[in-house]
Amino acid sequence: MAKKRILSGMRPTGPLHLGHLHGALANWKRMQDEYECFFFIADWHALTTDYEKTGGIAQNIREMMMDWLAVGLSPDKCTMFVQSHIKEHAELYLLLGMLTPVPWLERNPTYKEQIVQLADKDLSTYGFLGYPVLQAADIIMYKADGVPVGIDQVPHVELTREIVRRFNYLYGQVFVEPQSILTETPKILGLDRRKMSKSYQNGISLSDSPETVRKRVGEMITDPQRMRKSDPGDPDICNVFSFHKMYSPAETVDEVNRECRVAGIGCVACKKKMAENLAAFLAPIYENRRDLAENPAVVDEIIAAGDAKARETARATMAQAREAMHI
Amino acid sequence: MAKKRILSGMRPTGPLHLGHLHGALANWKRMQDEYECFFFIADWHALTTDYEKTGGIAQNIREMMMDWLAVGLSPDKCTMFVQSHIKEHAELYLLLGMLTPVPWLERNPTYKEQIVQLADKDLSTYGFLGYPVLQAADIIMYKADGVPVGIDQVPHVELTREIVRRFNYLYGQVFVEPQSILTETPKILGLDRRKMSKSYQNGISLSDSPETVRKRVGEMITDPQRMRKSDPGDPDICNVFSFHKMYSPAETVDEVNRECRVAGIGCVACKKKMAENLAAFLAPIYENRRDLAENPAVVDEIIAAGDAKARETARATMAQAREAMHI
Repeated sequence: MAKKRILSGMRPTGPLHLGHLHGALANWKRMQDEYECFFFIADWHALTTDYEKTGGIAQNIREMMMDWLAVGLSPDKCTMFVQSHIKEHAELYLLLGMLTPVPWLERNPTYKEQIVQLADKDLSTYGFLGYPVLQAADIIMYKADGVPVGIDQVPHVELTREIVRRFNYLYGQVFVEPQSILTETPKILGLDRRKMSKSYQNGISLSDSPETVRKRVGEMITDPQRMRKSDPGDPDICNVFSFHKMYSPAETVDEVNRECRVAGIGCVACKKKMAENLAAFLAPIYENRRDLAENPAVVDEIIAAGDAKARETARATMAQAREAMHI
Repeated sequence: MAKKRILSGMRPTGPLHLGHLHGALANWKRMQDEYECFFFIADWHALTTDYEKTGGIAQNIREMMMDWLAVGLSPDKCTMFVQSHIKEHAELYLLLGMLTPVPWLERNPTYKEQIVQLADKDLSTYGFLGYPVLQAADIIMYKADGVPVGIDQVPHVELTREIVRRFNYLYGQVFVEPQSILTETPKILGLDRRKMSKSYQNGISLSDSPETVRKRVGEMITDPQRMRKSDPGDPDICNVFSFHKMYSPAETVDEVNRECRVAGIGCVACKKKMAENLAAFLAPIYENRRDLAENPAVVDEIIAAGDAKARETARATMAQAREAMHI
């Protein structure tokens, strides 16, 4: 039986951090062995919220591809490409827009949410209203069976399914209705205990050097109720302890869990232990990334090869879509 | 000094009639000698109002190109192409949509008008809302200085100018603000005295044979107050007389004008005179068209050559646009 096909993408908005790694990339890495995977850098999507400042996009695309490669996504196992390099996405977006009712888009729960959340940005644009149409085009272009998503993205995939049904009803069976693949991912908090996010500048990047990792860990907020080293702490509410559970060996976790509660270890020493383990965890990624940065031509070639593979599939799909529409 | 550049297009919704000839094509034919002209068949635009039935589009494209060639548009003088063959239009539509506020589109006076007028069609789509964005992409792709339009199209060109200003402000000077070129055109009424229109089936097509022309003219409504041949008529309110003024020699016009008022000529005889002159006027178009229909490969080649010329300009423009946007 043929492998099921998976598609996912990320907007090139800046360096990836631990939240991206555990929230998506680790999952993608597992999936590349099980499925036929298409992963794309969604640069056109970045314009839906950030059309006013586009200066960094080209660099962010390269950085993102280096991050992906550094964590172990392999061009031999999956197709990694850049959305705007495959012009067929724009054509399919245009065609799908013709049959997508505006009320379907206005109903999109994240539409109004984002307009409120990103109040400093002008999101009243035609492109922002239509980004689920572009997303639908991205997904169905590759006839993906599944799309790994967080719970908040499920309505988008549902909208894609509605668009597929409408297209297939009007013109004949061309596209596949994708399934949402809900992924349970550990929640990674940032240094300040808020959600790890680029906009909060509270993350640890995959490209951070071991020195930077140590420095950033030093800035982490621990148990906020533990004021002095002589106070007993509560690992259950300490973000550093959450990190220990992810990056430190079991005996360290046990030791810290025990000693913290009796003030047997201070936060500084505890962080230092964790920082070494995290730095060791990130070291191979950091080194891979450094090698890639020294060989930009390799990254270019990988992008070009991924684009070519994606383009082949996209062209075949568009030929079918145009034939079905008689256009 | 370089020739100014002109762009215009038509939706391939069916055979062209006398209204198209006098309303647009005659003007285009004059312009091809004066300007650098791009004329395109707007098949994607046809989807904005007719996405539910697309079966005839491919044939309509060929028929439209034959009509254009038959009336004297020359591939040696102007660039004639098919919109959907130049994928760059979809890409530019996508990019311009990112910076076009939805309220600009909702304000478009023809938007609400058409929703009322075409109440039998579902026009609540994303594509229909955004057709002025696609139109802007069509125009500015070729850096057209001027767009020949009727008065009702002026707001669209104004919207294009607003989009150009916004793009150039955000990313730098890439696009040209097009001017509306208002064209005075004779108002052609259909056989039933309503506006000549495909949807009323009251037209005389450029592809009608002389026999069909005679038959169709026979169906024309004349002075509605003239009930009997013995009643004097009023040429000033007679649509056949309007046609005489366009297609008959001056002496015939004078004669008919005089004799009708004194019941010296009946409507049947008057129509027959006009029909012969109209048939003679249309005969070369009919013959050109017949020759083209017998040589489909010629039409295909002309379309392919026009596409290639348009594509070259479109690619150059998109390279500039992408560079300006850093994408």
